[in-house]
Amino acid sequence: LARERSLASFTARQLTHLLDGGQEHTEHIESIRRLLDREAVFDRIHSYHLNHEDMYLRGLQMMERFRALCVKHQWSSKDTAVAYREIYEGMPTILNDDLFVKTIKEQATDEQQARWLPLATNWAILGCYAQTEMAHGSNVRGIETTATFLPESDELELNSPTLTSVKWWPGALGKTANVALVMAQLVLADGSRAGVFPFMVQIRSFADHKLLPGVETGDIGPKIGFNAIDNGYLSLKNVRIPRSNMLMRHVELTRDGQLKRRGQNDQRHVYGTLLYARVNIVADAMMALAQGTTIATRYSLVRRQFSHAESNSNAATEVVVLDHQSQQHRVLVPICEAYAFHFTGQRMHELYRRLTSPGLSADTAAALLAKAHASASALKPYVTDVASHSLETLRRACGGHGYSRFSGLPDLFTFYVQFNTVEGENHIMAQQAARALLKRY
Amino acid sequence: LARERSLASFTARQLTHLLDGGQEHTEHIESIRRLLDREAVFDRIHSYHLNHEDMYLRGLQMMERFRALCVKHQWSSKDTAVAYREIYEGMPTILNDDLFVKTIKEQATDEQQARWLPLATNWAILGCYAQTEMAHGSNVRGIETTATFLPESDELELNSPTLTSVKWWPGALGKTANVALVMAQLVLADGSRAGVFPFMVQIRSFADHKLLPGVETGDIGPKIGFNAIDNGYLSLKNVRIPRSNMLMRHVELTRDGQLKRRGQNDQRHVYGTLLYARVNIVADAMMALAQGTTIATRYSLVRRQFSHAESNSNAATEVVVLDHQSQQHRVLVPICEAYAFHFTGQRMHELYRRLTSPGLSADTAAALLAKAHASASALKPYVTDVASHSLETLRRACGGHGYSRFSGLPDLFTFYVQFNTVEGENHIMAQQAARALLKRY
Repeated sequence: LARERSLASFTARQLTHLLDGGQEHTEHIESIRRLLDREAVFDRIHSYHLNHEDMYLRGLQMMERFRALCVKHQWSSKDTAVAYREIYEGMPTILNDDLFVKTIKEQATDEQQARWLPLATNWAILGCYAQTEMAHGSNVRGIETTATFLPESDELELNSPTLTSVKWWPGALGKTANVALVMAQLVLADGSRAGVFPFMVQIRSFADHKLLPGVETGDIGPKIGFNAIDNGYLSLKNVRIPRSNMLMRHVELTRDGQLKRRGQNDQRHVYGTLLYARVNIVADAMMALAQGTTIATRYSLVRRQFSHAESNSNAATEVVVLDHQSQQHRVLVPICEAYAFHFTGQRMHELYRRLTSPGLSADTAAALLAKAHASASALKPYVTDVASHSLETLRRACGGHGYSRFSGLPDLFTFYVQFNTVEGENHIMAQQAARALLKRY
Repeated sequence: LARERSLASFTARQLTHLLDGGQEHTEHIESIRRLLDREAVFDRIHSYHLNHEDMYLRGLQMMERFRALCVKHQWSSKDTAVAYREIYEGMPTILNDDLFVKTIKEQATDEQQARWLPLATNWAILGCYAQTEMAHGSNVRGIETTATFLPESDELELNSPTLTSVKWWPGALGKTANVALVMAQLVLADGSRAGVFPFMVQIRSFADHKLLPGVETGDIGPKIGFNAIDNGYLSLKNVRIPRSNMLMRHVELTRDGQLKRRGQNDQRHVYGTLLYARVNIVADAMMALAQGTTIATRYSLVRRQFSHAESNSNAATEVVVLDHQSQQHRVLVPICEAYAFHFTGQRMHELYRRLTSPGLSADTAAALLAKAHASASALKPYVTDVASHSLETLRRACGGHGYSRFSGLPDLFTFYVQFNTVEGENHIMAQQAARALLKRY
């Protein structure tokens, strides 16, 4: 390794700074990395012998230490994000700290945010985002769960009217969360349907974590990866919440049961959270490929097989496999992809920042949104498909050793492939990108 | 399903007979299937909650019931093969019943076969095939384990001289097997190396299964799949076996330490076992794809998503996803591959039967071997790469549900992908196929 590194015209350290965005950022990341390295629970080696149920228990132990570090070192939300990225493994609270908090910030009124955000960021409540149903994924408008307005009591009553309407897949829903942001069809007093909106629903007691009346939930079982997370199901029967638990930043359900739009019809609010998730997926592909290529490259420099002179083939004279052209093709192409996706991800983040900056004219905002939506729709499926394929290529490039979980490559693949499906299934995304391109002609 | 089936111009039953090779064979398979279905231990649903260690214990339970059925119903080796195929899951004895027995048949003398085969087929001994070493896989000639001839005692002494020479990966070696066919460099009395040959080495006591002196072994740990198998490591230190434990059908190590070739230099003996393994891999790709496409097709006929008229999208009017063209592309292509690989596999089996039939002239045998070797070298990597990719395509085609192990698709993929690596790594095979093609010009 030292020999190979000495051949570069720059130092590994310089490259690290470039990728991290400067020496200061590298040192920040490393300071958090050092704290994590001192905690035995974050050592992944323990996880390879665990089944799903024990993986989840390990997830809870990780949460406990994570929280302790948060408090002790007074981590900012940026510190927390760095720590999650460094751990790079499912932990049930990621759903609270990322998707749940993000949705509140985008969809809740200032008053609602003041009520919920401090609780969520301090884990006084643990939330999850419950959208997908057993029979309803990509087609959000097909969601069957209902939230019916009850004028007498000024409440909303939530129901899962059918088996197919049961919420299925939300992370942290099965065992961890005590509140859920439930996406449901709003049914007005006259029985008309007004669309799908998020509702804040307490599902478990804050005292003893027992399920509240009318709530049925549980873990949906082992998955190919991501097994520290309790993806869950949720069936609701006549569960009532105050009207003020409907997230109403962009719409208002009035006391007399009228649904009104607030302010301009700014599409950025509708697509903001999803777009943010897709931008992150594009940017994070680099993480998976960076880890995979690091493992495979190191292996390829240590592993020797075959000698160039075929006649006298033994260990002493065998060549390092990275000197075989076919191995270079398998390892170097994914390295290029990792760099390409890193800088692509930075551009997407920049675009998202411009889109969400205050004071944009309506026209500029609309144009930027169209561009960001089209780019994310094209890049999300492309990047995840390429990265998944390359992770499997890298796994195979390590021969038998790549089949062992101790190599790290199997878990990288089984964790990563979910990104082909979540936050906009790849085939649907590609069709949206195609539609955006066709519109230009 | 019934509606879709009624549209075909033939019955599903007719097609089953065609694939099985006639009604008689279908009924034979089904009679064994019925026996297996009565045994709870073969129900795969139990396996999804188990870690590697518990999967292995389940493997032992399966072995126990498998043996009981074997004895009770007096299964022939053909019945046994059908049963293994129906179970289609790793079971530690597959290494004994397939690779171990096969190697004895091809490499041992008649006298040796008479000694070992009855023991192996009755599980009086449980064998494994120990070739791959920690640092030596594709390059068999690089194997470091030594078997040194000791003229005084007429014995061979086996040693693992280095860390890199430790046997690594052989299935059933870690805990199950009590004998191993160890591939090692034969070292003659004058210190010269005479090549790599198989040696029968007892590694555990037949009385209490404890390791014999000089033998160190164990399980190499959790893998991405195939976790009911105890892939193992093996380090040997001054382990002695009688000279008669060297498999000597095609060579003879004489009492005075001379190595002699027996009979014609028939290359069929050198490549027979490996070729057989590759032919089976080509033929078995159909099994994995048949299971995967069955699951994905049924899902695609039950799952509904999006309506053609976009404006009024709800569950009642949503279309079955198989009616979306993109879903057809994902599911129907692998179905075609399954059929293509089935008939390709049949052709390869036929070629192998001709190659191994008695009474061929030397020229015919050489020509058939060249053809079979080239075909297997081309087809093995092609078929396994395509099938692996399609299994992942099918998994994704089931959306979120494909990420759940309960769908069956994750385990199908993680089990299957080993075939890209074993029995001739795909890149090496493709290069051999290319070499065979270039030779023709």
